[in-house]
Amino acid sequence: MPKLFQSVSPLDDTILFDGPESTPKQIERAIATARQSAILWHRTPLSQRIQIARNYAKHLSEHREEIRELITSEVGKLPWDADAEIGAAIGKIDLSVTALHERRGKTVIESGSLARVVRYHPLGVALVLGPFNFPLHLPGGQIVPALLAGNTIVFKPSDQATAVGQWMIDAWRQAGLPDGVMQMVQGGVEVAVHAIDSPLINAVLLTGSRAAGRAIHRQLAGRPDVLLALELGGNNPVVVSDSIPSATVAELVTFSAFVSAGQRCSCARRALFIENSHSEAHIDAVIERTQSLVVGLPGDQTTPQVGPLISALAAKQLRKTYDALLANGCRAVVPWKVNSRRENLVHPAIVDATQCTDAQLSAIGELEWFGPLLVIQRVADFNAAVAAAANTPYGLAATLLGGTTSMFENFVDSVGAGVVNWNRPTTGAAGSLPFGGMGDSGNHRPAGYHAIDFCSDPVASLQSPTETESFATLDPWDVVK
Amino acid sequence: MPKLFQSVSPLDDTILFDGPESTPKQIERAIATARQSAILWHRTPLSQRIQIARNYAKHLSEHREEIRELITSEVGKLPWDADAEIGAAIGKIDLSVTALHERRGKTVIESGSLARVVRYHPLGVALVLGPFNFPLHLPGGQIVPALLAGNTIVFKPSDQATAVGQWMIDAWRQAGLPDGVMQMVQGGVEVAVHAIDSPLINAVLLTGSRAAGRAIHRQLAGRPDVLLALELGGNNPVVVSDSIPSATVAELVTFSAFVSAGQRCSCARRALFIENSHSEAHIDAVIERTQSLVVGLPGDQTTPQVGPLISALAAKQLRKTYDALLANGCRAVVPWKVNSRRENLVHPAIVDATQCTDAQLSAIGELEWFGPLLVIQRVADFNAAVAAAANTPYGLAATLLGGTTSMFENFVDSVGAGVVNWNRPTTGAAGSLPFGGMGDSGNHRPAGYHAIDFCSDPVASLQSPTETESFATLDPWDVVK
Repeated sequence: MPKLFQSVSPLDDTILFDGPESTPKQIERAIATARQSAILWHRTPLSQRIQIARNYAKHLSEHREEIRELITSEVGKLPWDADAEIGAAIGKIDLSVTALHERRGKTVIESGSLARVVRYHPLGVALVLGPFNFPLHLPGGQIVPALLAGNTIVFKPSDQATAVGQWMIDAWRQAGLPDGVMQMVQGGVEVAVHAIDSPLINAVLLTGSRAAGRAIHRQLAGRPDVLLALELGGNNPVVVSDSIPSATVAELVTFSAFVSAGQRCSCARRALFIENSHSEAHIDAVIERTQSLVVGLPGDQTTPQVGPLISALAAKQLRKTYDALLANGCRAVVPWKVNSRRENLVHPAIVDATQCTDAQLSAIGELEWFGPLLVIQRVADFNAAVAAAANTPYGLAATLLGGTTSMFENFVDSVGAGVVNWNRPTTGAAGSLPFGGMGDSGNHRPAGYHAIDFCSDPVASLQSPTETESFATLDPWDVVK
Repeated sequence: MPKLFQSVSPLDDTILFDGPESTPKQIERAIATARQSAILWHRTPLSQRIQIARNYAKHLSEHREEIRELITSEVGKLPWDADAEIGAAIGKIDLSVTALHERRGKTVIESGSLARVVRYHPLGVALVLGPFNFPLHLPGGQIVPALLAGNTIVFKPSDQATAVGQWMIDAWRQAGLPDGVMQMVQGGVEVAVHAIDSPLINAVLLTGSRAAGRAIHRQLAGRPDVLLALELGGNNPVVVSDSIPSATVAELVTFSAFVSAGQRCSCARRALFIENSHSEAHIDAVIERTQSLVVGLPGDQTTPQVGPLISALAAKQLRKTYDALLANGCRAVVPWKVNSRRENLVHPAIVDATQCTDAQLSAIGELEWFGPLLVIQRVADFNAAVAAAANTPYGLAATLLGGTTSMFENFVDSVGAGVVNWNRPTTGAAGSLPFGGMGDSGNHRPAGYHAIDFCSDPVASLQSPTETESFATLDPWDVVK
């Protein structure tokens, strides 16, 4: 009997998907179909692949309200936030086409009868394991470049975003994607594990947790030919220096920490304040702004800034992290509070780690959480701030607020993160830049603009056409003198 | 007690290195030193890193005869072949500098007060595990870009090329490379295994066998943050079509198969002849040319084209493969023959697989060998040739001889190799092109010109200088409408 599962709305417990997980047989069939379609799709002219992707973008634009409502309903994202996600998903098409031409276009250098040529060959079948937090844009950030580069796709959306996954598959079909080129499988971890075991898979692209990334890496041990691209979590620091107004610090820190209810991998988890004549005012402003953020549900009269977590379970897990932080020496500054309307509607919370020991601070840097919970800490000077910021095995995003150009150059060099911003939030990566983490946050496989690099292998050729080559002088042994 | 080992000349059993393997403590100390030097080297201005690399190239030029003699003596490479290797090693410097500027240079796009910037951050400590067959050029192909990109190096040369490794380390030192930036460890598999286990290693770059590549991939299971670049073996096909003179076929096929005594990963292992009015003449020409190749040792009066294998053990292993091919249904065409002068001086051999069953042919495609041994096979038509060429889990190099432009386009698309040439040998990759294999031949980590891509991680920044930013309008929450 296949295992049954549901995808339930974090807003009102509406059931968005109710059905069986894909069975092993179904998973194998999906992968076999994607494999069978690989040659056809690879040989489809690029112009046609691009046209289908553009049709998909058009479909998103034309159905923007429909998919926004579905995203809001299924993962609880506030409408303005879901709308921004759809905008990013639409923008991904043109960005990926540009990236393909710019970074993976065929190159030819001719000298006499000999040409040196680089072409790019698709990997084959790419298994895309999507997250719930950007159920459209993040899998799209892997699917769009992979399809453009000529790969076929087996897509498993998060089991908490199966309805959005189905909608997306359907949108691609309506955009003209040939049958077989993109297959969907549905369910949880076991479905992913079974798919990864298939010998017909050429790439696994995961957006998820460090634990999931490591587990897949272990599962693929001894199969170096399978490309594994991991976009994992972070424990992202914001360092607050001087020469920046407290009001701006408050907006940038709270946005970094609490946008999407803290459910972005790039959200700030720690704010490190360099002690100076402004730092206490900065901290007070952050606390005040946190307390003034509008927490609520879509449709509320005042548009909420912070919406619900994906589930009551997620709220419970976040509470555990909050307790762990207190147990680790942190002091509650904006204490834990759950909104009375729903148990997954959690108010932003702040704890202070200034008085923690070195061991406690290291333990905090190891934690991975996903919700509106921020650790603040006072540090003596800039060097201490950089050291504290880097005191984590993760390395996804980091931001410096204030400070000078030379301080920022030092920061970007030393903090050990894949996204390092200055006077900007940790979140909101530009689609025209690479994206991805170092250390425990990823595996050298940037998403964003460089994602296209990981969708194909270069093929190098020395070629001289039979039609024009003069064979009379072609003797490689003439190097022997 | 440390294990003792020797590096012995394949020419005359002279002992080139005689000493202990690196102990666990020595390995850990080497890695710790490389780690400690990482920040210093990363912060050394690029112009200075480039200058040191250029000094190294100059040192190679000035000591060309000395290192050529050492390579010939330690790994048995014929002088003309060793000299070509040194030329490639020298050329690698300028090519790597160009690649670094072209592919990994900082980019800045400014719009108003906001700049989108991409910098590249070195990985840290790179463990380079070198092969014996290009003891200078192939580790250099990883060491040069890695150093230029700001990484420090722990280098374990092949235990059959330890003296060349020592010479290379010394050459870098004389070129001005600061102490600590490149460390050498010496010995066999156990030394590599111990080094790979170090938590301070950020990258492992191997040129070696499929078995070694898989073993390291398994050893690194659960450590996705360690970059693993594998350049493994191949079972490389040459497809011979029509419209090309038999004499040229003979030169290109025998060179592809027997240059460096078949000890190049890009050497041809199978020649597939499409049956037509010329094919028997082509085959006869290849056999004849094979029998006429000059087999010998450096210093012989007639310059040899084919020299000795690395060791008597290698000759024994090759003989096993030869026997396995015969047991698999192949017929000896140019039979196995060992030169009376040394047991590792093996004459080029050819076996014919035309009469093999499909199962036997698949078994042949699985084999990995390293020596002057070629399988020939007649195939009915071009499609059968492409299918036969692709009938291997490897995918390093392939060549089409003769044929039309549309046939070559089909070939390059279908054969599944990282280097696909036309009317050129399978060997002799251009330094200005990427290099590396698909399938069991590598892991999406091209060497050659693209090696620089795998020596650093991109760091993306949205940055607006404190000095120029007008903070009054900076409120990310304004997206909430």
